[in-house]
Amino acid sequence: MLEEIKYVKPDEIEARSMSIITGELENMGLMDDSWTEEEFLVVRRCIHTSADFDYAKNLYFSEDAVRIALEAIKGGASVITDTKMAAAGINKKRLGAFGGQVCSFMDDPKVAEIARERQITRSAVCMEQGARIPGRKIFAVGNAPTALIRLYELIKEGDVRPDLIIGVPVGFVNVVESKELICSCGVPCIVARGRKGGSNIAAAICNALIYQCK
Amino acid sequence: MLEEIKYVKPDEIEARSMSIITGELENMGLMDDSWTEEEFLVVRRCIHTSADFDYAKNLYFSEDAVRIALEAIKGGASVITDTKMAAAGINKKRLGAFGGQVCSFMDDPKVAEIARERQITRSAVCMEQGARIPGRKIFAVGNAPTALIRLYELIKEGDVRPDLIIGVPVGFVNVVESKELICSCGVPCIVARGRKGGSNIAAAICNALIYQCK
Repeated sequence: MLEEIKYVKPDEIEARSMSIITGELENMGLMDDSWTEEEFLVVRRCIHTSADFDYAKNLYFSEDAVRIALEAIKGGASVITDTKMAAAGINKKRLGAFGGQVCSFMDDPKVAEIARERQITRSAVCMEQGARIPGRKIFAVGNAPTALIRLYELIKEGDVRPDLIIGVPVGFVNVVESKELICSCGVPCIVARGRKGGSNIAAAICNALIYQCK
Repeated sequence: MLEEIKYVKPDEIEARSMSIITGELENMGLMDDSWTEEEFLVVRRCIHTSADFDYAKNLYFSEDAVRIALEAIKGGASVITDTKMAAAGINKKRLGAFGGQVCSFMDDPKVAEIARERQITRSAVCMEQGARIPGRKIFAVGNAPTALIRLYELIKEGDVRPDLIIGVPVGFVNVVESKELICSCGVPCIVARGRKGGSNIAAAICNALIYQCK
C-alpha cells in the first residue's frame, strides 16, 4: 500500500482531487448553475484547500468580480493581505510575472506603533498602508473583521478604490457583519458569507484567480 | 453599528469567541466527555481557526499526546512543518521562549534538488531534513500526505523518534490513508481523521499547545 500511494505526482494528485470535488458537487446537488466557469474554479479551489463543501454554498461573487479581478492581475495588481499566513500561501512567482506583489504590513514596527497610538488593530492600519500603494490593488482579508471595516470606511471616504476585495475572515464575533458591509459597498468582491473563511481560503481564492491568468 | 463593532479589543474578541464555541458545542451535544481539559483547548482552537465544528468529531489524540507535547515544548522542542503557511502562523516568539524553533525547509534549494533527483516530493525531503535536527522534535504536517508517509518510514527504520506528530494534511487523494498510518505507528500524535485539515489547522494545534505551556 505504501508503494502504491507514495509515487503519485503532485500535479496528478491535484487533477484527481479536482475531479473528485466536481463529481461530489454534482452528486450532492451543490453544483450551482449560475456560476460562471471562472467562478466555479474559485469555489473548487476553496473546497480543495479545506475539504469543506460549505464553500459551494457560502461564496458570494459580486457581478463580474472574477472577470474584473483577472483583468486587474494581468494589469499588474498587487495583493494586500492582513495575514502573514495568506501572504505565505499566495503564489508570488506567478503573480509577479504580471508585475504584482504581495504586501502584508503586519510585521512592520511602524504599523504596530500606529495601532497602539490610535487604539485600533494592526490589521486596520495595514489596510491604510495598502490604500497608499500606487497602481491596481486587490485586498485579501482572511483574518480580521476590523480590516474589512476600516477598508469600508476608506472606500466611503474616497481614499481607496480597490479593484477587488476578497472578504473571508473567519470567526464568531463581528465577522458576519463585516462581510455584509463589504457585499454592500459597491466594490467588486468575493466574500465567504457567514462565519467561515481564513487565511488559507484567502490564499486559495488569490491563487484560483492568478492561475486563470495567462 | 460601525462604531459598535470597531473597538472591541482583540483579546476580548478571542475570549468571546471561545465562549461562543463552548456554548455551541454543548448545545449541539458535541462536547466529548473523554476529552481532557488540555485536549479540549486544542479542539476549540481548531474550531476557532476554521469555524468548522467537524473538528469536534475528527480529532484523534493518542494516549497522553497533549501532556507529552507540553513537556516536549517546555523542554525546547522544535517544530518541523511541511508548509510555509503553517510556519508563518505558529507563534515563534512564544515557542522560542522555551528554546524551540520553527523549521520549514520548503524554500531550501538543496531540498528541491534532492526531490528532483530522487523523484519524491519536497515535503518528503523536508521530513528527512527535520529528522536530523538535534534535540526534541514535533512534526506538524498540514499539507502533504507524502510527508506523513516518509515520516512513517523514517520511524520504522529507526531514523527518528518524534516527540509528537501533528498529522493534519487536507485533501482527497491518499490523505485519509496517510493519517491512519500515523495513528498506528506508535508515536504520540494528534490527527484530524478524514479529509479535513490544512496548514491553518496545523498552526492552530501548535499554538493551542504552545499557549498551554507556562
